[in-house]
Amino acid sequence: MTAETAKDDWPLEDRGVAYGDGLFETVLVRDGRPLLWEQHLARLARGCGVLGIPLPAREALEAPLVEAGEGLSVLKLILTRGSGGRGYALPIPSDPQLRWRLSPFAPSAQRWRQGVRVRHCRLRLGIQPMLAGLKHLNRLENVLARAEWTDADTAEGLLCDSEGRLVEATCMNLVWQRDGKLETPRLDRCGVAGTLRSVLLERAPIHEVDAFPSALDGVEALWLGNSLQGLWPVARLDDAAGTPIRHWTIGPAHRRLQALAHAALGYPPVT
Amino acid sequence: MTAETAKDDWPLEDRGVAYGDGLFETVLVRDGRPLLWEQHLARLARGCGVLGIPLPAREALEAPLVEAGEGLSVLKLILTRGSGGRGYALPIPSDPQLRWRLSPFAPSAQRWRQGVRVRHCRLRLGIQPMLAGLKHLNRLENVLARAEWTDADTAEGLLCDSEGRLVEATCMNLVWQRDGKLETPRLDRCGVAGTLRSVLLERAPIHEVDAFPSALDGVEALWLGNSLQGLWPVARLDDAAGTPIRHWTIGPAHRRLQALAHAALGYPPVT
Repeated sequence: MTAETAKDDWPLEDRGVAYGDGLFETVLVRDGRPLLWEQHLARLARGCGVLGIPLPAREALEAPLVEAGEGLSVLKLILTRGSGGRGYALPIPSDPQLRWRLSPFAPSAQRWRQGVRVRHCRLRLGIQPMLAGLKHLNRLENVLARAEWTDADTAEGLLCDSEGRLVEATCMNLVWQRDGKLETPRLDRCGVAGTLRSVLLERAPIHEVDAFPSALDGVEALWLGNSLQGLWPVARLDDAAGTPIRHWTIGPAHRRLQALAHAALGYPPVT
Repeated sequence: MTAETAKDDWPLEDRGVAYGDGLFETVLVRDGRPLLWEQHLARLARGCGVLGIPLPAREALEAPLVEAGEGLSVLKLILTRGSGGRGYALPIPSDPQLRWRLSPFAPSAQRWRQGVRVRHCRLRLGIQPMLAGLKHLNRLENVLARAEWTDADTAEGLLCDSEGRLVEATCMNLVWQRDGKLETPRLDRCGVAGTLRSVLLERAPIHEVDAFPSALDGVEALWLGNSLQGLWPVARLDDAAGTPIRHWTIGPAHRRLQALAHAALGYPPVT
Protein backbone atom coordinates (compact mmCIF):
# COMPACT_ATOMS: atom_id res chain seq x y z
CA MET A 1 0.00 0.00 0.00
CA THR A 2 2.96 2.32 0.23
CA ALA A 3 4.00 3.81 -3.07
CA GLU A 4 7.24 2.46 -4.40
CA THR A 5 9.73 5.23 -5.03
CA ALA A 6 11.91 4.47 -7.97
CA LYS A 7 13.32 5.91 -11.15
CA ASP A 8 12.97 2.80 -13.26
CA ASP A 9 10.46 1.90 -15.96
CA TRP A 10 6.71 1.41 -15.67
CA PRO A 11 5.33 -2.12 -15.42
CA LEU A 12 3.69 -3.21 -18.66
CA GLU A 13 0.19 -3.25 -17.19
CA ASP A 14 0.35 -0.11 -15.08
CA ARG A 15 -2.97 1.69 -15.15
CA GLY A 16 -1.08 4.93 -15.65
CA VAL A 17 -0.52 4.02 -19.28
CA ALA A 18 -3.63 1.87 -19.72
CA TYR A 19 -6.07 4.56 -18.56
CA GLY A 20 -4.07 7.63 -17.55
CA ASP A 21 -5.12 6.54 -14.06
CA GLY A 22 -2.95 8.80 -11.93
CA LEU A 23 -1.63 12.26 -11.17
CA PHE A 24 1.52 14.30 -11.65
CA GLU A 25 3.30 17.38 -10.34
CA THR A 26 6.13 19.39 -11.86
CA VAL A 27 7.97 21.27 -9.15
CA LEU A 28 10.57 24.03 -9.36
CA VAL A 29 13.56 23.14 -7.18
CA ARG A 30 16.23 25.66 -6.17
CA ASP A 31 19.38 24.36 -4.48
CA GLY A 32 17.52 21.24 -3.43
CA ARG A 33 14.51 23.11 -1.99
CA PRO A 34 11.10 22.70 -3.69
CA LEU A 35 9.16 25.89 -4.38
CA LEU A 36 5.41 26.14 -3.68
CA TRP A 37 5.78 22.69 -2.15
CA GLU A 38 2.76 22.95 0.15
CA GLN A 39 0.61 23.91 -2.83
CA HIS A 40 1.90 20.97 -4.86
CA LEU A 41 1.28 18.57 -1.98
CA ALA A 42 -2.20 19.98 -1.45
CA ARG A 43 -3.15 19.52 -5.10
CA LEU A 44 -1.74 16.00 -5.16
CA ALA A 45 -3.65 15.14 -2.00
CA ARG A 46 -6.86 16.50 -3.47
CA GLY A 47 -6.33 14.43 -6.62
CA CYS A 48 -5.65 11.30 -4.58
CA GLY A 49 -8.87 11.91 -2.69
CA VAL A 50 -10.93 12.24 -5.88
CA LEU A 51 -9.35 9.24 -7.60
CA GLY A 52 -9.15 7.10 -4.47
CA ILE A 53 -5.40 6.58 -4.74
CA PRO A 54 -3.53 6.36 -1.40
CA LEU A 55 -1.37 9.48 -0.98
CA PRO A 56 2.31 8.56 -0.61
CA ALA A 57 4.07 9.60 2.57
CA ARG A 58 5.59 13.07 2.46
CA GLU A 59 9.02 11.49 2.95
CA ALA A 60 8.62 9.42 -0.20
CA LEU A 61 7.62 12.50 -2.20
CA GLU A 62 10.59 14.48 -0.84
CA ALA A 63 13.16 11.70 -1.21
CA PRO A 64 14.21 12.69 -4.75
CA LEU A 65 15.23 16.16 -3.55
CA VAL A 66 18.48 14.88 -2.07
CA GLU A 67 19.66 14.24 -5.61
CA ALA A 68 19.04 17.80 -6.77
CA GLY A 69 22.24 19.80 -7.01
CA GLU A 70 22.86 23.53 -6.83
CA GLY A 71 20.80 25.88 -8.93
CA LEU A 72 17.45 25.33 -10.62
CA SER A 73 15.91 22.01 -11.55
CA VAL A 74 12.48 20.56 -12.17
CA LEU A 75 11.19 17.60 -10.22
CA LYS A 76 8.53 15.70 -12.12
CA LEU A 77 6.56 13.30 -9.93
CA ILE A 78 4.14 10.79 -11.47
CA LEU A 79 1.84 8.78 -9.22
CA THR A 80 -0.32 6.04 -10.73
CA ARG A 81 -2.81 3.62 -9.25
CA GLY A 82 -0.47 0.79 -10.26
CA SER A 83 -1.60 -2.44 -11.90
CA GLY A 84 -4.61 -4.63 -11.35
CA GLY A 85 -8.37 -4.51 -11.32
CA ARG A 86 -10.71 -6.04 -13.86
CA GLY A 87 -10.88 -3.59 -16.72
CA TYR A 88 -11.87 -0.18 -15.38
CA ALA A 89 -12.83 -1.55 -11.95
CA LEU A 90 -10.44 -0.50 -9.19
CA PRO A 91 -7.91 -2.96 -7.81
CA ILE A 92 -8.51 -3.50 -4.10
CA PRO A 93 -6.15 -2.92 -2.47
CA SER A 94 -4.34 -0.73 -4.94
CA ASP A 95 -0.57 -0.73 -5.32
CA PRO A 96 0.24 2.88 -6.26
CA GLN A 97 3.44 3.52 -8.15
CA LEU A 98 5.53 6.67 -7.77
CA ARG A 99 8.19 7.60 -10.29
CA TRP A 100 10.21 10.78 -10.61
CA ARG A 101 12.79 12.57 -12.64
CA LEU A 102 14.96 15.59 -11.94
CA SER A 103 16.02 17.78 -14.88
CA PRO A 104 18.02 21.00 -15.10
CA PHE A 105 15.86 24.06 -15.73
CA ALA A 106 16.18 27.67 -16.81
CA PRO A 107 13.18 29.98 -17.16
CA SER A 108 12.90 32.35 -20.10
CA ALA A 109 13.98 35.76 -18.80
CA GLN A 110 13.37 37.23 -22.23
CA ARG A 111 9.70 36.32 -22.03
CA TRP A 112 9.50 37.91 -18.59
CA ARG A 113 10.86 41.17 -20.03
CA GLN A 114 9.37 41.40 -23.51
CA GLY A 115 6.16 39.51 -22.96
CA VAL A 116 4.86 36.80 -25.26
CA ARG A 117 2.68 36.18 -28.26
CA VAL A 118 -0.24 33.80 -27.65
CA ARG A 119 -3.13 32.55 -29.76
CA HIS A 120 -6.60 31.19 -29.29
CA CYS A 121 -6.87 27.45 -29.79
CA ARG A 122 -9.67 25.82 -31.80
CA LEU A 123 -9.95 22.85 -29.47
CA ARG A 124 -12.46 23.25 -26.66
CA LEU A 125 -12.04 21.49 -23.35
CA GLY A 126 -14.66 18.98 -22.31
CA ILE A 127 -16.54 19.83 -19.13
CA GLN A 128 -15.83 17.35 -16.33
CA PRO A 129 -16.37 18.83 -12.86
CA MET A 130 -15.15 15.66 -11.14
CA LEU A 131 -11.66 16.11 -12.59
CA ALA A 132 -11.59 19.92 -12.74
CA GLY A 133 -8.52 21.49 -11.18
CA LEU A 134 -6.59 18.24 -10.88
CA LYS A 135 -3.25 17.59 -12.53
CA HIS A 136 -4.22 14.11 -13.69
CA LEU A 137 -2.66 12.01 -16.44
CA ASN A 138 -5.48 12.40 -19.00
CA ARG A 139 -3.90 15.18 -21.03
CA LEU A 140 -4.76 14.41 -24.64
CA GLU A 141 -6.71 17.66 -24.92
CA ASN A 142 -3.58 19.59 -23.96
CA VAL A 143 -1.50 17.59 -26.44
CA LEU A 144 -3.96 18.24 -29.28
CA ALA A 145 -4.26 21.93 -28.41
CA ARG A 146 -0.47 22.35 -28.30
CA ALA A 147 -0.26 20.74 -31.74
CA GLU A 148 -2.31 23.60 -33.23
CA TRP A 149 0.84 25.67 -33.77
CA THR A 150 4.48 24.91 -34.46
CA ASP A 151 6.06 28.37 -34.88
CA ALA A 152 8.51 29.23 -32.12
CA ASP A 153 7.18 32.80 -31.85
CA THR A 154 3.90 31.61 -30.36
CA ALA A 155 4.45 30.90 -26.69
CA GLU A 156 1.08 29.54 -25.65
CA GLY A 157 -2.51 28.86 -26.69
CA LEU A 158 -5.69 29.91 -24.89
CA LEU A 159 -8.37 27.31 -24.28
CA CYS A 160 -12.12 27.64 -23.82
CA ASP A 161 -14.50 24.97 -22.55
CA SER A 162 -17.13 23.31 -24.73
CA GLU A 163 -19.57 26.08 -23.79
CA GLY A 164 -17.12 28.79 -24.86
CA ARG A 165 -15.81 30.08 -21.52
CA LEU A 166 -12.12 30.94 -21.12
CA VAL A 167 -10.34 28.36 -18.96
CA GLU A 168 -6.54 28.35 -19.20
CA ALA A 169 -3.62 28.01 -21.60
CA THR A 170 -2.22 24.61 -22.59
CA CYS A 171 0.18 24.51 -19.61
CA MET A 172 -0.44 27.82 -17.83
CA ASN A 173 -3.18 29.71 -16.05
CA LEU A 174 -4.54 33.11 -17.06
CA VAL A 175 -4.91 36.35 -15.15
CA TRP A 176 -6.02 39.68 -16.54
CA GLN A 177 -6.69 43.19 -15.30
CA ARG A 178 -9.89 44.92 -16.30
CA ASP A 179 -10.84 48.36 -14.99
CA GLY A 180 -8.03 48.02 -12.47
CA LYS A 181 -9.37 44.70 -11.12
CA LEU A 182 -7.61 41.36 -11.40
CA GLU A 183 -9.57 38.35 -12.66
CA THR A 184 -8.86 34.70 -13.47
CA PRO A 185 -11.18 32.01 -14.88
CA ARG A 186 -13.00 29.78 -12.43
CA LEU A 187 -11.78 26.18 -12.74
CA ASP A 188 -14.74 24.23 -11.44
CA ARG A 189 -15.69 22.65 -14.78
CA CYS A 190 -12.30 21.83 -16.32
CA GLY A 191 -8.69 23.03 -16.40
CA VAL A 192 -5.73 22.58 -14.07
CA ALA A 193 -5.55 24.73 -10.94
CA GLY A 194 -1.91 25.77 -11.00
CA THR A 195 0.11 26.18 -7.83
CA LEU A 196 1.28 29.65 -8.85
CA ARG A 197 -2.37 30.57 -9.42
CA SER A 198 -3.15 29.35 -5.89
CA VAL A 199 -0.44 31.55 -4.42
CA LEU A 200 -1.55 34.59 -6.41
CA LEU A 201 -5.15 34.06 -5.27
CA GLU A 202 -3.89 34.10 -1.67
CA ARG A 203 -1.69 37.15 -2.01
CA ALA A 204 -3.48 39.42 -4.49
CA PRO A 205 -7.12 40.54 -4.82
CA ILE A 206 -7.90 38.30 -7.81
CA HIS A 207 -11.51 37.38 -8.54
CA GLU A 208 -12.45 34.02 -10.03
CA VAL A 209 -14.93 34.67 -12.83
CA ASP A 210 -16.82 33.08 -15.71
CA ALA A 211 -15.63 34.89 -18.82
CA PHE A 212 -15.81 34.49 -22.57
CA PRO A 213 -12.98 35.47 -24.96
CA SER A 214 -14.70 38.79 -25.66
CA ALA A 215 -13.85 39.69 -22.07
CA LEU A 216 -10.24 40.12 -23.21
CA ASP A 217 -11.17 42.94 -25.59
CA GLY A 218 -11.14 45.51 -22.85
CA VAL A 219 -8.43 44.31 -20.49
CA GLU A 220 -5.44 46.51 -19.61
CA ALA A 221 -3.13 43.56 -19.04
CA LEU A 222 -3.10 39.80 -19.60
CA TRP A 223 -0.63 37.34 -18.06
CA LEU A 224 0.09 33.63 -18.34
CA GLY A 225 1.90 31.82 -15.60
CA ASN A 226 2.90 28.61 -13.94
CA SER A 227 5.19 27.53 -11.14
CA LEU A 228 8.12 26.86 -13.45
CA GLN A 229 8.13 29.84 -15.79
CA GLY A 230 6.75 32.49 -13.46
CA LEU A 231 4.51 35.13 -15.01
CA TRP A 232 4.61 36.12 -18.69
CA PRO A 233 2.93 39.36 -19.77
CA VAL A 234 1.06 38.92 -23.05
CA ALA A 235 2.16 41.44 -25.70
CA ARG A 236 0.12 40.09 -28.58
CA LEU A 237 -2.95 37.88 -28.93
CA ASP A 238 -3.69 36.06 -32.20
CA ASP A 239 -6.84 34.31 -33.33
CA ALA A 240 -6.75 30.57 -34.04
CA ALA A 241 -5.47 31.24 -37.57
CA GLY A 242 -2.49 33.25 -36.30
CA THR A 243 -3.84 36.71 -37.19
CA PRO A 244 -3.19 39.34 -34.51
CA ILE A 245 -6.30 40.65 -32.78
CA ARG A 246 -4.85 42.53 -29.77
CA HIS A 247 -1.58 44.15 -28.71
CA TRP A 248 -0.57 45.29 -25.25
CA THR A 249 2.29 47.55 -24.26
CA ILE A 250 4.08 46.01 -21.31
CA GLY A 251 4.04 48.57 -18.48
CA PRO A 252 4.16 49.08 -14.72
CA ALA A 253 0.81 47.31 -14.12
CA HIS A 254 2.30 44.19 -15.69
CA ARG A 255 5.37 44.41 -13.50
CA ARG A 256 3.49 44.64 -10.19
CA LEU A 257 1.75 41.24 -10.42
CA GLN A 258 4.86 39.77 -12.00
CA ALA A 259 6.93 40.89 -9.01
CA LEU A 260 4.47 39.20 -6.64
CA ALA A 261 4.65 35.95 -8.60
CA HIS A 262 8.41 36.05 -8.87
CA ALA A 263 8.84 36.67 -5.18
CA ALA A 264 6.97 33.41 -4.54
CA LEU A 265 9.33 31.55 -6.87
CA GLY A 266 12.55 33.30 -5.92
CA TYR A 267 12.85 34.86 -9.38
CA PRO A 268 14.11 38.44 -9.73
CA PRO A 269 11.66 41.27 -10.29
CA VAL A 270 11.64 42.52 -13.87
CA THR A 271 12.10 46.20 -14.60
CA MET B 1 9.71 5.44 -36.96
CA THR B 2 8.49 1.85 -36.90
CA ALA B 3 6.77 0.89 -33.69
CA GLU B 4 8.74 -1.47 -31.54
CA THR B 5 6.84 -4.64 -30.81
CA ALA B 6 7.63 -5.96 -27.40
CA LYS B 7 6.10 -7.30 -24.24
CA ASP B 8 8.43 -5.57 -21.80
CA ASP B 9 7.92 -2.53 -19.60
CA TRP B 10 7.24 1.08 -20.60
CA PRO B 11 10.12 3.56 -20.61
CA LEU B 12 9.95 5.95 -17.67
CA GLU B 13 9.17 8.96 -19.82
CA ASP B 14 6.74 7.41 -22.26
CA ARG B 15 3.98 9.86 -23.14
CA GLY B 16 1.50 7.03 -22.73
CA VAL B 17 1.77 7.35 -18.98
CA ALA B 18 2.68 11.06 -18.87
CA TYR B 19 -0.35 12.20 -20.89
CA GLY B 20 -2.34 9.12 -21.89
CA ASP B 21 -0.96 9.97 -25.33
CA GLY B 22 -1.91 6.87 -27.26
CA LEU B 23 -4.53 4.31 -28.22
CA PHE B 24 -5.51 0.76 -27.42
CA GLU B 25 -7.52 -2.15 -28.75
CA THR B 26 -8.78 -5.28 -27.00
CA VAL B 27 -9.36 -8.02 -29.52
CA LEU B 28 -11.12 -11.36 -29.18
CA VAL B 29 -8.89 -14.12 -30.54
CA ARG B 30 -10.14 -17.62 -31.35
CA ASP B 31 -7.60 -20.32 -32.16
CA GLY B 32 -5.09 -17.63 -33.09
CA ARG B 33 -7.47 -15.72 -35.39
CA PRO B 34 -8.55 -12.20 -34.37
CA LEU B 35 -12.27 -11.43 -34.56
CA LEU B 36 -13.55 -8.15 -36.04
CA TRP B 37 -9.94 -7.50 -36.95
CA GLU B 38 -10.67 -5.15 -39.83
CA GLN B 39 -12.87 -3.05 -37.53
CA HIS B 40 -10.14 -2.93 -34.87
CA LEU B 41 -7.54 -1.92 -37.45
CA ALA B 42 -9.85 0.74 -38.88
CA ARG B 43 -10.48 2.31 -35.46
CA LEU B 44 -6.78 2.24 -34.61
CA ALA B 45 -5.94 3.87 -37.95
CA ARG B 46 -8.53 6.57 -37.36
CA GLY B 47 -7.09 7.25 -33.91
CA CYS B 48 -3.56 7.43 -35.30
CA GLY B 49 -4.77 9.92 -37.87
CA VAL B 50 -6.40 12.16 -35.27
CA LEU B 51 -3.47 12.01 -32.84
CA GLY B 52 -0.77 12.14 -35.51
CA ILE B 53 0.85 8.88 -34.41
CA PRO B 54 2.33 6.76 -37.23
CA LEU B 55 0.24 3.61 -37.65
CA PRO B 56 2.35 0.47 -37.11
CA ALA B 57 2.59 -1.97 -39.98
CA ARG B 58 -0.15 -4.58 -40.05
CA GLU B 59 2.51 -7.27 -39.62
CA ALA B 60 3.65 -5.71 -36.33
CA LEU B 61 0.07 -5.61 -35.05
CA GLU B 62 -0.52 -9.23 -36.03
CA ALA B 63 2.79 -10.58 -34.76
CA PRO B 64 1.48 -11.39 -31.25
CA LEU B 65 -1.15 -13.74 -32.70
CA VAL B 66 1.38 -16.49 -33.30
CA GLU B 67 1.62 -16.86 -29.53
CA ALA B 68 -2.11 -17.36 -29.06
CA GLY B 69 -2.97 -20.99 -28.47
CA GLU B 70 -6.19 -22.90 -29.05
CA GLY B 71 -9.46 -21.53 -27.76
CA LEU B 72 -10.37 -18.01 -26.74
CA SER B 73 -7.98 -15.28 -25.67
CA VAL B 74 -7.89 -11.51 -25.57
CA LEU B 75 -5.15 -9.55 -27.29
CA LYS B 76 -4.65 -6.14 -25.72
CA LEU B 77 -2.62 -3.79 -27.89
CA ILE B 78 -1.39 -0.46 -26.55
CA LEU B 79 0.21 2.05 -28.91
CA THR B 80 1.73 5.23 -27.48
CA ARG B 81 3.48 8.18 -29.09
CA GLY B 82 6.64 7.17 -27.23
CA SER B 83 8.92 9.58 -25.40
CA GLY B 84 10.10 13.05 -26.25
CA GLY B 85 8.79 16.48 -27.06
CA ARG B 86 8.92 19.57 -24.86
CA GLY B 87 6.02 19.27 -22.50
CA TYR B 88 2.83 18.77 -24.47
CA ALA B 89 4.50 19.66 -27.79
CA LEU B 90 4.86 16.68 -30.12
CA PRO B 91 8.23 15.00 -30.58
CA ILE B 92 9.30 15.23 -34.22
CA PRO B 93 9.84 12.59 -35.40
CA SER B 94 7.91 10.50 -32.95
CA ASP B 95 9.02 7.08 -31.81
CA PRO B 96 5.76 5.18 -31.25
CA GLN B 97 5.81 2.25 -28.88
CA LEU B 98 3.64 -0.82 -29.24
CA ARG B 99 3.12 -3.26 -26.40
CA TRP B 100 0.76 -6.19 -26.13
CA ARG B 101 -0.50 -8.91 -23.89
CA LEU B 102 -2.44 -12.09 -24.56
CA SER B 103 -4.74 -13.40 -21.81
CA PRO B 104 -7.11 -16.35 -21.66
CA PHE B 105 -10.76 -15.35 -21.93
CA ALA B 106 -14.23 -16.76 -21.36
CA PRO B 107 -17.41 -14.76 -21.96
CA SER B 108 -20.30 -14.90 -19.51
CA ALA B 109 -22.82 -17.28 -21.04
CA GLN B 110 -25.10 -16.75 -18.06
CA ARG B 111 -25.39 -13.06 -18.87
CA TRP B 112 -26.20 -13.93 -22.47
CA ARG B 113 -29.08 -16.12 -21.28
CA GLN B 114 -30.49 -14.33 -18.25
CA GLY B 115 -29.66 -10.77 -19.16
CA VAL B 116 -28.04 -8.28 -16.81
CA ARG B 117 -28.78 -5.62 -14.26
CA VAL B 118 -27.39 -2.17 -15.12
CA ARG B 119 -27.59 1.24 -13.49
CA HIS B 120 -27.38 4.86 -14.46
CA CYS B 121 -24.08 6.51 -13.47
CA ARG B 122 -23.90 9.93 -11.87
CA LEU B 123 -20.76 10.92 -13.76
CA ARG B 124 -21.35 12.69 -17.06
CA LEU B 125 -18.91 12.44 -19.92
CA GLY B 126 -17.20 15.61 -21.11
CA ILE B 127 -17.95 16.59 -24.69
CA GLN B 128 -14.86 16.39 -26.89
CA PRO B 129 -15.68 15.86 -30.58
CA MET B 130 -11.99 15.61 -31.54
CA LEU B 131 -11.59 12.44 -29.48
CA ALA B 132 -15.11 11.06 -29.87
CA GLY B 133 -15.28 7.44 -30.98
CA LEU B 134 -11.58 6.75 -30.40
CA LYS B 135 -10.25 4.13 -28.01
CA HIS B 136 -7.59 6.43 -26.58
CA LEU B 137 -5.72 6.12 -23.31
CA ASN B 138 -7.52 8.96 -21.46
CA ARG B 139 -10.00 6.81 -19.60
CA LEU B 140 -10.30 8.39 -16.16
CA GLU B 141 -13.99 9.10 -16.76
CA ASN B 142 -14.58 5.39 -17.32
CA VAL B 143 -12.57 4.53 -14.19
CA LEU B 144 -14.55 6.98 -12.05
CA ALA B 145 -17.87 5.83 -13.48
CA ARG B 146 -17.02 2.16 -12.88
CA ALA B 147 -16.17 3.04 -9.28
CA GLU B 148 -19.78 4.14 -8.67
CA TRP B 149 -20.81 0.57 -7.79
CA THR B 150 -19.08 -2.44 -6.27
CA ASP B 151 -21.84 -5.05 -6.03
CA ALA B 152 -21.29 -8.02 -8.34
CA ASP B 153 -24.96 -8.08 -9.39
CA THR B 154 -24.62 -4.84 -11.33
CA ALA B 155 -23.02 -5.63 -14.67
CA GLU B 156 -22.62 -2.17 -16.17
CA GLY B 157 -23.35 1.53 -15.79
CA LEU B 158 -24.98 3.84 -18.35
CA LEU B 159 -23.30 7.15 -19.11
CA CYS B 160 -24.71 10.42 -20.37
CA ASP B 161 -22.74 13.38 -21.70
CA SER B 162 -22.51 16.70 -19.90
CA GLU B 163 -25.66 17.84 -21.70
CA GLY B 164 -27.59 14.80 -20.56
CA ARG B 165 -27.68 12.64 -23.69
CA LEU B 166 -27.21 8.87 -23.45
CA VAL B 167 -23.81 7.82 -24.81
CA GLU B 168 -22.64 4.35 -23.79
CA ALA B 169 -21.88 2.11 -20.83
CA THR B 170 -18.49 2.16 -19.09
CA CYS B 171 -17.01 -0.44 -21.47
CA MET B 172 -19.90 -1.30 -23.79
CA ASN B 173 -22.17 0.31 -26.36
CA LEU B 174 -25.96 0.50 -26.14
CA VAL B 175 -28.67 -0.56 -28.55
CA TRP B 176 -32.40 -0.51 -27.91
CA GLN B 177 -35.59 -1.30 -29.75
CA ARG B 178 -38.43 1.19 -29.70
CA ASP B 179 -41.65 0.66 -31.67
CA GLY B 180 -39.92 -2.16 -33.48
CA LYS B 181 -37.00 0.04 -34.58
CA LEU B 182 -33.40 -0.36 -33.45
CA GLU B 183 -31.50 2.68 -32.19
CA THR B 184 -28.06 3.44 -30.74
CA PRO B 185 -26.60 6.72 -29.46
CA ARG B 186 -24.63 8.86 -31.88
CA LEU B 187 -20.98 9.03 -30.80
CA ASP B 188 -19.84 12.26 -32.41
CA ARG B 189 -19.39 14.18 -29.12
CA CYS B 190 -17.86 11.53 -26.82
CA GLY B 191 -17.82 7.80 -26.20
CA VAL B 192 -15.98 4.89 -27.77
CA ALA B 193 -17.27 3.52 -31.07
CA GLY B 194 -17.07 -0.21 -30.40
CA THR B 195 -16.16 -2.67 -33.12
CA LEU B 196 -19.19 -4.84 -32.39
CA ARG B 197 -21.33 -1.70 -32.72
CA SER B 198 -19.72 -1.05 -36.12
CA VAL B 199 -20.58 -4.55 -37.31
CA LEU B 200 -24.16 -4.31 -36.06
CA LEU B 201 -24.59 -0.95 -37.82
CA GLU B 202 -23.47 -2.64 -41.06
CA ARG B 203 -25.66 -5.70 -40.72
CA ALA B 204 -28.85 -4.50 -39.03
CA PRO B 205 -31.12 -1.48 -39.60
CA ILE B 206 -29.91 0.47 -36.55
CA HIS B 207 -30.38 4.23 -36.46
CA GLU B 208 -27.88 6.50 -34.72
CA VAL B 209 -29.85 8.96 -32.61
CA ASP B 210 -29.59 11.69 -29.98
CA ALA B 211 -31.51 10.41 -26.98
CA PHE B 212 -31.98 11.25 -23.33
CA PRO B 213 -32.48 8.64 -20.58
CA SER B 214 -36.25 9.16 -20.73
CA ALA B 215 -36.07 7.53 -24.16
CA LEU B 216 -35.54 4.21 -22.37
CA ASP B 217 -38.94 4.42 -20.68
CA GLY B 218 -40.74 3.08 -23.69
CA VAL B 219 -38.27 0.67 -25.27
CA GLU B 220 -39.16 -2.99 -25.83
CA ALA B 221 -35.57 -4.18 -25.46
CA LEU B 222 -32.20 -2.82 -24.38
CA TRP B 223 -28.82 -4.45 -25.00
CA LEU B 224 -25.22 -3.76 -24.03
CA GLY B 225 -22.41 -5.19 -26.04
CA ASN B 226 -18.77 -5.23 -26.99
CA SER B 227 -16.47 -7.35 -29.08
CA LEU B 228 -15.38 -9.51 -26.14
CA GLN B 229 -18.61 -10.22 -24.31
CA GLY B 230 -21.02 -10.23 -27.22
CA LEU B 231 -24.50 -8.85 -26.56
CA TRP B 232 -26.15 -8.78 -23.12
CA PRO B 233 -29.90 -8.20 -22.89
CA VAL B 234 -30.77 -5.85 -20.05
CA ALA B 235 -33.27 -7.37 -17.62
CA ARG B 236 -33.28 -4.58 -15.04
CA LEU B 237 -32.29 -0.92 -15.02
CA ASP B 238 -31.55 0.88 -11.74
CA ASP B 239 -31.16 4.56 -11.05
CA ALA B 240 -27.81 5.90 -9.81
CA ALA B 241 -28.75 4.99 -6.23
CA GLY B 242 -29.39 1.34 -7.13
CA THR B 243 -33.21 1.51 -7.04
CA PRO B 244 -34.88 -0.42 -9.88
CA ILE B 245 -36.73 1.75 -12.39
CA ARG B 246 -37.40 -0.69 -15.27
CA HIS B 247 -37.61 -4.43 -15.85
CA TRP B 248 -37.64 -6.26 -19.16
CA THR B 249 -38.61 -9.86 -19.87
CA ILE B 250 -36.01 -11.39 -22.14
CA GLY B 251 -37.79 -12.65 -25.26
CA PRO B 252 -37.46 -13.49 -28.95
CA ALA B 253 -36.77 -9.87 -29.96
CA HIS B 254 -33.72 -9.91 -27.69
CA ARG B 255 -32.50 -13.15 -29.20
CA ARG B 256 -32.62 -11.96 -32.81
CA LEU B 257 -30.09 -9.13 -32.45
CA GLN B 258 -28.04 -11.25 -30.09
CA ALA B 259 -27.81 -13.99 -32.72
CA LEU B 260 -26.54 -11.47 -35.27
CA ALA B 261 -23.88 -10.19 -32.86
CA HIS B 262 -22.84 -13.66 -31.83
CA ALA B 263 -22.50 -14.82 -35.41
CA ALA B 264 -19.96 -12.03 -35.95
CA LEU B 265 -17.96 -13.22 -32.94
CA GLY B 266 -18.34 -16.95 -33.45
CA TYR B 267 -20.40 -17.28 -30.27
CA PRO B 268 -23.38 -19.66 -30.20
CA PRO B 269 -26.90 -18.32 -30.56
CA VAL B 270 -28.82 -18.23 -27.28
CA THR B 271 -32.23 -19.83 -27.03
